[in-house]
Parts: sequence; C-alpha cells; structure tokens
Amino acid sequence: MQIATLHDLMLHELRDIYSAEQQLVKSLPGMSKAATSEELQNALQSHLAQTEQHVSRLEQVFEILGESPRGVKCKGMEGLLAEGKGLLDEDIDPEVLDAGIIAAAQRVEHYEIAAYGTVCEFARSMDHSEVVALLGATLAEEKEADDILTGLAEGGINALAARDD
Amino acid sequence: MQIATLHDLMLHELRDIYSAEQQLVKSLPGMSKAATSEELQNALQSHLAQTEQHVSRLEQVFEILGESPRGVKCKGMEGLLAEGKGLLDEDIDPEVLDAGIIAAAQRVEHYEIAAYGTVCEFARSMDHSEVVALLGATLAEEKEADDILTGLAEGGINALAARDD
Repeated sequence: MQIATLHDLMLHELRDIYSAEQQLVKSLPGMSKAATSEELQNALQSHLAQTEQHVSRLEQVFEILGESPRGVKCKGMEGLLAEGKGLLDEDIDPEVLDAGIIAAAQRVEHYEIAAYGTVCEFARSMDHSEVVALLGATLAEEKEADDILTGLAEGGINALAARDD
Repeated sequence: MQIATLHDLMLHELRDIYSAEQQLVKSLPGMSKAATSEELQNALQSHLAQTEQHVSRLEQVFEILGESPRGVKCKGMEGLLAEGKGLLDEDIDPEVLDAGIIAAAQRVEHYEIAAYGTVCEFARSMDHSEVVALLGATLAEEKEADDILTGLAEGGINALAARDD
C-alpha cells in the first residue's frame, strides 16, 4: 500500500491496531488461566470483554471510513505477546508469575495507549469527529485497564511475590 | 533460567530492558535520518544520547546487584522496531512520514514506560532503594521523551501531514 497522505497513514495504523486487538483476544484467556490471584483473573477476563468491544468499535470506524479493516499484521503486538508467552512457559513460582503476567499485560496496555493516542490525534487533525469519539472511548478504557493492573501490583501482588526474597 | 523469586523476575525484566535499550541505540540514528522536520530530528538525536545514558544506568544497576546484564533478547522491542522500520521502507510522503516516525517512537517510549514502571515497583517492594533511584530517573526521562513527541505531533507535524487530505 502506498502511503501518500495522513489519511492513508491513519488507515495503516488502524489496521495495525485491528490486528493487535485480534491477537490480544486470542491471548488473554491463556494469561487469565495462568494467573493465581482471583482479582487478576477477573481483571483479565473483564479486559477480554472490553477488548472484544474495542474490535467492534474499530469495525464501526472502518465502516464510517468505507474501508476494509484487514491487510496489516501487527508485529509490535506479536513481539509483546511472544514475550508474555515466554514467561508463561518458564518454570516459575505461581505468586511470582502473577507479577510477571501484570508486567506483560501492562506492556500490552501501553502499546495500545500509544497506538490509540496516535490515531485519535490523526483523526482530530482531519476533523473526523465521529472517529475521534469512538477511538477516544477505547483510549480511556485502555488507560483505565492499565491503572487497574498498577493497583493490583501495588495493592498486594508484588508484596506477595516478594515474600520469599 | 528458573524464575523462583521476585528477585529472579526482576533480573529477567532488567535483562529484557537492557536488550531493548541496546536495540534502540542501533535504531534511533536511522529514524532520525529519515525525519524531515528539524525539531523531530533533534528530539530523536537527544533521545539517543539519553538512551546511551539509560544503558549505562542499567549497567550500574547490574553492578549493584552483582549480576550480568546479558542473557535475554527483548522480543517486544524487536517487534516494535520491525514495525517502525517497515514504515521507513514504505513509499511515503516525507511530511506524512514524520507523523509515522512519531507514532513508532511513541510506541517505543510507552514500551519503556511500562517496563521501567514495572521494575521500579519490583525494586521498591524489595527495598532496593539505590536501584529504585536509578530506574526512577530513567522512567521520568522516558515519560518526558513521550511528552516531547506528543508536543511535536500536536504542535504542527500532524497538521502539516494533514494538509493534502
């Protein structure tokens, strides 16, 4: 695809995020299953439901723009999820693993915060107000999900993991 | 490596970040060279100097912990940089490319914000105050670098890129 205009770049970035969200939908159940803390399991489960909604919001955005969501494979998310999966495959103490799952999930959240922040600003510079509203709603939820994970880490999971140090 | 304790996980994460920073040192010159805006070039150049300092701060951290920084290849950063490089290889208008370089660089910054945020909290739960101070200094600089990029995007680069839409 030739990227001649900011509109083309926005489409490229939106397709990248669409691929990222779909990869995440496939990975979150495994992360949640590997977690020991019930609170962490619940946080990952409810983020899975949110992520499915983010996919459908992106589909709405592509419908507004009259374009197809397909055509880009998100290598960034692929790397992040490979890293997270690598941790699940390690021989690791369950309470320490919870801290590691949060670490991996927060890298994912920050990827999405950066990615949605970017496309939101692109859409704003081109006065696509409907698109800004949809992407902005997801961006707010990604930030909230990151804050919830920080709260879980600082609120007990890291302290529990540090007990044997 | 077996990860039995939070200390082991912190070491694993620190080695991941060490690999990430080294990959970034190699990639930033190409990103800066591809940029058209002088302000963006300067921001990427000065972030390269900062990144070299981040590598040396990490070496200090490993010295304090009496451990080697090597042994982990950061797949997350590898994916992010592959994505950024993919954009540089596209047939793309120079002003639009600047917006794309910022998008790629902000994904990198957010990776680092998440990663340093995590190890900082791990070190804090284990009362490694010297390590917290070193990692906290870098974390603050990564957030600042991200804010500078946002400022450049919103302060003219996106508007310039949107002119032909």
